[in-house]
Amino acid sequence: MMEDLYIVKIGGDVLENTEAMKALTEDLCQLNGKLMVIHGGGKMAGALAEKLGYRQTMVEGRRVTDSGTLDVTIMVYGGLVNKNLVAAFQAIGKNAIGLSGADLNMIRSVRRPAGNVDFGYVGDPYPELVNVSNLTALLNMNFLPVFCPLTWDGDGQLLNTNADTIASVLAMALSSEYSVNLIYCFGKEGVLSDPEDDDSVVKVMDKEIYGQLKSKGVLNDGILPKLDNAFSAASEACAVRICSHYKILEAAKGRAGTLILAS
Amino acid sequence: MMEDLYIVKIGGDVLENTEAMKALTEDLCQLNGKLMVIHGGGKMAGALAEKLGYRQTMVEGRRVTDSGTLDVTIMVYGGLVNKNLVAAFQAIGKNAIGLSGADLNMIRSVRRPAGNVDFGYVGDPYPELVNVSNLTALLNMNFLPVFCPLTWDGDGQLLNTNADTIASVLAMALSSEYSVNLIYCFGKEGVLSDPEDDDSVVKVMDKEIYGQLKSKGVLNDGILPKLDNAFSAASEACAVRICSHYKILEAAKGRAGTLILAS
Repeated sequence: MMEDLYIVKIGGDVLENTEAMKALTEDLCQLNGKLMVIHGGGKMAGALAEKLGYRQTMVEGRRVTDSGTLDVTIMVYGGLVNKNLVAAFQAIGKNAIGLSGADLNMIRSVRRPAGNVDFGYVGDPYPELVNVSNLTALLNMNFLPVFCPLTWDGDGQLLNTNADTIASVLAMALSSEYSVNLIYCFGKEGVLSDPEDDDSVVKVMDKEIYGQLKSKGVLNDGILPKLDNAFSAASEACAVRICSHYKILEAAKGRAGTLILAS
Repeated sequence: MMEDLYIVKIGGDVLENTEAMKALTEDLCQLNGKLMVIHGGGKMAGALAEKLGYRQTMVEGRRVTDSGTLDVTIMVYGGLVNKNLVAAFQAIGKNAIGLSGADLNMIRSVRRPAGNVDFGYVGDPYPELVNVSNLTALLNMNFLPVFCPLTWDGDGQLLNTNADTIASVLAMALSSEYSVNLIYCFGKEGVLSDPEDDDSVVKVMDKEIYGQLKSKGVLNDGILPKLDNAFSAASEACAVRICSHYKILEAAKGRAGTLILAS
């Protein structure tokens, strides 16, 4: 039987709240198996970009990344958020190591071609561009990889990459080596069938239910790309859950959040 | 016989110049033995702090680090400079991994007590606070550790730390495991006996010569802490050199720069 690996995406307000982050890191250390974390930080990057006078353009929830904005994402994701999260894990005795996709050539990506929109320095990762052997080596040493949402093009250029997509791609790449549990944490209790009602968590979701809710227009825009990433990763070798930062342990046991079913 | 380990501190303008950085990384890859790099980035951090309106105070060449300035150093050192340098090494096939002192608990430090000056979030590292076993593990996997000048207090707090001092402390800590070559690179050809004359490189320096030049007042202020760090590390197990970024290979062969002799 393959060993359990938890791949947990964390993002949003929890990253700016020292107390919440402490509680979250403590919960994560209780998961039974190997652990890997991917964080976001878009709100903080946006705030710094504004302060520096870089005008931000979002297209379908994704940040257009010009050269100045790329520097901001490298500073905020690769520096501020990543290093503080690593220090928070180390403070409770978990041997964390911060990584971008360039470190140990962990995640290469393909710079998105300019079409109707030129997203600039944005990279799309694929499972076959993940360095599974280096990642497995770190996990075997009981290190905790903490990924920031940056990849590279294989030729020295860092690229801004969506954290949800990185989580999904890592899960796909590692499901040949581990029994993967991919958990997307965010501010809500799970996928809501009524965006106004926090108690309307959809407990189990397959593509059919997804299609129904989507066509009814009850899913909010923010959750759609997350669900697409979740469905991409879901398979026999990878269980996917979407839940609140505060209920990770319950979600891991199937008692909270939304379980995404492979079709 | 112990294996050679090169510990190279790089800093200054080279970090902001893509072409110079490429040449430097290529030179470094030609050194015969294990390699470890420590970079600075103070000028870039100062520039960002100014842009953000954080007033900077320097005392004897050291940055007073309040909470906002600490965030700036984490972003610039841990993010912008470190990740771009890692990507530059990876682009030429060297398996670099970026590290702060918090990653894998590599370098703890002691927050400097407030005396006449309160330096704020500044940490002083010591050889016994270096995680030699984790570092050796990475070197044994042929990874290239690339350190930014940040350490941590062992309790979740990141601290700004002088890069020259980190280089010296790493050299001391690792000289039980390796035959260490510590190389400080900077904008000059070596220690100058006449700051106005770039050809006045002192080829070999021991503490006696240091004392003489110091009392004559011919050494500029910037070089004094670097020399103190250099003398701290110099020993039978650790050769120390100070040279230009452009002459690392010659300096490693003793044909350029200043050799620092243990007393």
